[in-house]
Amino acid sequence: MVVFGIDPGYAIVGWGAISYKSNTYKAIGYGSVETQAHSDFNRRLEYIYDELYSILQRCRPDALAIERLYFQTNQKTAIKVAQARGVTLLAAQKLKIPIFEYTPLQVKTAVTGYGKAKKPQVMEMTRRLLNLDEVPKPDDTADALAIAICHIQAAGSELRRAMFRKGL
Amino acid sequence: MVVFGIDPGYAIVGWGAISYKSNTYKAIGYGSVETQAHSDFNRRLEYIYDELYSILQRCRPDALAIERLYFQTNQKTAIKVAQARGVTLLAAQKLKIPIFEYTPLQVKTAVTGYGKAKKPQVMEMTRRLLNLDEVPKPDDTADALAIAICHIQAAGSELRRAMFRKGL
Repeated sequence: MVVFGIDPGYAIVGWGAISYKSNTYKAIGYGSVETQAHSDFNRRLEYIYDELYSILQRCRPDALAIERLYFQTNQKTAIKVAQARGVTLLAAQKLKIPIFEYTPLQVKTAVTGYGKAKKPQVMEMTRRLLNLDEVPKPDDTADALAIAICHIQAAGSELRRAMFRKGL
Repeated sequence: MVVFGIDPGYAIVGWGAISYKSNTYKAIGYGSVETQAHSDFNRRLEYIYDELYSILQRCRPDALAIERLYFQTNQKTAIKVAQARGVTLLAAQKLKIPIFEYTPLQVKTAVTGYGKAKKPQVMEMTRRLLNLDEVPKPDDTADALAIAICHIQAAGSELRRAMFRKGL
């Protein structure tokens, strides 16, 4: 199973693809799509869509996991992030990749087993689970990998629950 | 000049295309893109994008005018509207149509000359300016036409200002 994680944004969109086989996670690619500050916002949307579409097309993951949006104090930023998240979802939808959403709490709990874990702890656990030498940069990329791990765990427990229900 | 107005949304996206020639407005087409309640949100985004892309491709307006988003009390709705607005902007951007944004106040003032005009007054003035028998339905469509009128007026005054500066 290959899962593609996305940390949505408009200045930086973090992404990371993880394969999961025989109980082992492997980062098969990760990075970020970054758009220039002060450039035309509509062009930034188009750039994000085009880049993600092309990365997803190459990667062809089985699922896409993305963080759910919550509203912060800065509404102007929030509106921009939500608009960029819209084109991000569209890229996956166009490629018929199933989309799953997780809250920050679900991601923290999945990666560290502790819902009140701090950001550096989540990142360090992500690094260890993926057996990487360093925490990927920028933070948005590390976050995207954590979201992908969260989906793999959620999908795993769903599967276990389904097997249990079937009496297997 | 043909201007395409959009009232953004995710359940209903109102649209209306207006041509402006010799000081006369003419509605050359209007309607709404509607998505099914309770259907998958990502599919709704894709449907909105596909429909608007195809309408814009046929219409080929000189400009697209869209209402600026403000945050209401319901954040969940606001996030959905913003995400849908993102794919709406992408459709125009992909077709290289210049995009302009207006506040509700700008729209009201442009159409009625009065910033505190009520919604029915704005709609009635829109109907009169376009010489239509009835106010188009749903409200989102009438709003979209008002936004297009707003852009035509704004573009007109910009042009007059530029001419004035050049001493013409």
